[in-house]
Amino acid sequence: MSSSYGGYGHQSQYAPSAPQQPPYSSYYQTSTSNVPPPSNSSSSYNYANVSSSGSSSFPPGTPQDVITSFQMVDRDRSGFIDERELQQALSSGFHRFNLSTIRLLMFLFKNPHQPLAVGPKEFAALWSCLGQWRGIFERYDKDRSGKIDPLELRDALYGIGYAVPGSVLQLLLSKYGDGSGRRVELCFDSFVECGMIIKGLTDKFKEKDTRYTGSATLSYDAFMTMVLPFLVSYD
Amino acid sequence: MSSSYGGYGHQSQYAPSAPQQPPYSSYYQTSTSNVPPPSNSSSSYNYANVSSSGSSSFPPGTPQDVITSFQMVDRDRSGFIDERELQQALSSGFHRFNLSTIRLLMFLFKNPHQPLAVGPKEFAALWSCLGQWRGIFERYDKDRSGKIDPLELRDALYGIGYAVPGSVLQLLLSKYGDGSGRRVELCFDSFVECGMIIKGLTDKFKEKDTRYTGSATLSYDAFMTMVLPFLVSYD
Repeated sequence: MSSSYGGYGHQSQYAPSAPQQPPYSSYYQTSTSNVPPPSNSSSSYNYANVSSSGSSSFPPGTPQDVITSFQMVDRDRSGFIDERELQQALSSGFHRFNLSTIRLLMFLFKNPHQPLAVGPKEFAALWSCLGQWRGIFERYDKDRSGKIDPLELRDALYGIGYAVPGSVLQLLLSKYGDGSGRRVELCFDSFVECGMIIKGLTDKFKEKDTRYTGSATLSYDAFMTMVLPFLVSYD
Repeated sequence: MSSSYGGYGHQSQYAPSAPQQPPYSSYYQTSTSNVPPPSNSSSSYNYANVSSSGSSSFPPGTPQDVITSFQMVDRDRSGFIDERELQQALSSGFHRFNLSTIRLLMFLFKNPHQPLAVGPKEFAALWSCLGQWRGIFERYDKDRSGKIDPLELRDALYGIGYAVPGSVLQLLLSKYGDGSGRRVELCFDSFVECGMIIKGLTDKFKEKDTRYTGSATLSYDAFMTMVLPFLVSYD
């Protein structure tokens, strides 16, 4: 796509008319979305209740290649894999993700009983979610460049129900890129990271904005607790 | 320090009595602080107005070693250094910072005219700020281990005016560590990163909580704009 990044200006031009909804609902949740946002079957992003105990197994119907990918890296048959192993396991089906993306994925899909490792259920949910993100990536990478440009990213997020203001996207994208100042293009790895950050933070905000007014009152604790999980560190 | 991490529970036991202040002000801003939080001379963290143009020079009184550290890495004499050069320049005076810390520092101290590079003024401000953080690190690393443990971190943040709830600190610290589940101890690099994240997010929140009630009403845009700068990416 050749149109300029700045061109998408006001979100209102992309907001669908949705008279049955409160006036600001379209602000961060579009209503024309025909594609559900990626989520796994158990609960969206599994912030909590993934499995009931330390021991877990693959859900019925898990494709064999998913099971094989997991088992190949779980060499000690502990039933859990760490971040490096997850990186390796996912690379067989998707992409060699950066460790920052892996850490974000681990956080979002963690098993509360084993927060530093991923078990079969979490792995299957994560794989399924990444498959959905890949479908979106391919659908919106219209020029088949293997990269998503800012306009394609905006369209992709809009397509799954998130009408993100241009200024917000620009700020997010300023964190990516090679430092040359050239227009940022996202590979699948960064696309997933951006998508999960936008979806995750927006969903968290919406939990506090139950009437969809476009604003929310947050305590300091709630604010910090919402935000800190999305910071990824390299110790 | 040997007392348990979970022991610091409710912030109220650390909150000073401050009858002259609104009731919740001590919630995230302690009033007994005898040490001002690190900030640079021009404006705190310089989210904006650092220098008026692309050309800049060191402020009067900048120590010679700071100037030398900058000039040694600015080989093309452009007057600006990039993230790798900044990493190298700071290592002469402080620590070899992780690139994630470097990116956060660059964001917080950036020159709005050269957002991808650091000029002399920004560098001098950053150096001075890091010197203050080092002073705090040394003051609170009471056992001189060269590492800050969770209780020392809490005390250090409290000492500069931030009474951070235990649950918030625990969440932040869960991002650090070697994955073994052992108690996290922070080296100077991670300490600076944690400190700047807490200070930065808290200060941003306080801007929206002008009456110091401990809660604030945020629009979705404002929320995202506050938060995204603290996400650091590795493309």
